[in-house]
Amino acid sequence: MLTSARNQLSGTVTAITRGAVNDEVEIGLADGQAIVAIVTHSSTEALGLRIGTPAFALLKASWIILLTDTAGIKLSTRNQLAGTVASVTTGAVNAEVALTLAGGDVITAIITNESVRNLGLTVGAKASAAFKAAHVVVGVKA
Amino acid sequence: MLTSARNQLSGTVTAITRGAVNDEVEIGLADGQAIVAIVTHSSTEALGLRIGTPAFALLKASWIILLTDTAGIKLSTRNQLAGTVASVTTGAVNAEVALTLAGGDVITAIITNESVRNLGLTVGAKASAAFKAAHVVVGVKA
Amino acid sequence: MLTSARNQLSGTVTAITRGAVNDEVEIGLADGQAIVAIVTHSSTEALGLRIGTPAFALLKASWIILLTDTAGIKLSTRNQLAGTVASVTTGAVNAEVALTLAGGDVITAIITNESVRNLGLTVGAKASAAFKAAHVVVGVKA
Repeated sequence: MLTSARNQLSGTVTAITRGAVNDEVEIGLADGQAIVAIVTHSSTEALGLRIGTPAFALLKASWIILLTDTAGIKLSTRNQLAGTVASVTTGAVNAEVALTLAGGDVITAIITNESVRNLGLTVGAKASAAFKAAHVVVGVKA
Repeated sequence: MLTSARNQLSGTVTAITRGAVNDEVEIGLADGQAIVAIVTHSSTEALGLRIGTPAFALLKASWIILLTDTAGIKLSTRNQLAGTVASVTTGAVNAEVALTLAGGDVITAIITNESVRNLGLTVGAKASAAFKAAHVVVGVKA
Repeated sequence: MLTSARNQLSGTVTAITRGAVNDEVEIGLADGQAIVAIVTHSSTEALGLRIGTPAFALLKASWIILLTDTAGIKLSTRNQLAGTVASVTTGAVNAEVALTLAGGDVITAIITNESVRNLGLTVGAKASAAFKAAHVVVGVKA
């Protein structure tokens, strides 16, 4: 599997909810957390997605919002995965922050250096990765 | 409220239009412009969104398209906020452009240096920030 | 037409499929490939989209996933345009990869340098640009 998406989280399809045009596909991860993706019916069919199908979620690092201090706010994103900061690599303007989930999966987000400072993101800090279900790309091995 | 999203625009819910699965939530800003977000019913309920609820819209700077010369084209994005360029910070490849709206809100977009030149984005220039309603994350203080 | 979106692919509307709230708009490109966009009914009307209308698709470079070795995986993205790597410009962390489609259109993606190495993206290599229909912005000349 070779794509440029920084985040490729593997799991198993745990739920599929059919809507009029789109399906919500839930992919369970190793640590018990789940990723919700919105894809069209035709994609669900083309990929052969069923409960139990091994699948992966693709996310570019620029699609992810990090948050801390979650007690203070509620967001509309279906996906909010809790983890621990494993590394922070700062560039000229942006930084790459890697979050390790309890099951060992890693989510990398690109945020500004300013946000790294504001959020106090240092190795070991607790943080959550938030992203909309409509942004998640689902894949399977052919 | 601590998130890494560069743009956190606060306002009040001014309309909620229910669809089959998703709701369109309109957040009125200080200057009379509004942001339209598409979120699921369950998010509308979980966040307790009603007309008059104070809420904020989150947008990463990389999700925003800037445009000028709007008379010449029409775009499908529900959100097109008009403003004035307040600052342009150029990096090696990308630039951060901050747009001030009439009510004082600031929207920051990350675009290429090439686009800064092509669009003639200098301080004081008029420009619009375009983004899809499906990209907007809605939040409330818990 | 002046926008900051790196990718502005021009074509003609070849299909419009109406859903409950959203429409799927297909824009045929010069090389016979097509881009599928999801926009609201109101946008379809406001832009006057009909079969045969000249239109363009806007995409920021950060919204695009590149993939190679496509035989090994299937993705849920409606859009997967096949092309050939025309250039790779590496920065400190990210790289810009330009893909030329058969009809001469160019799609630019921003991915990490690490992905450039992992995917073996050198000039002349075959690759595909994948992006969700919900991400595509449609425009017309007014």
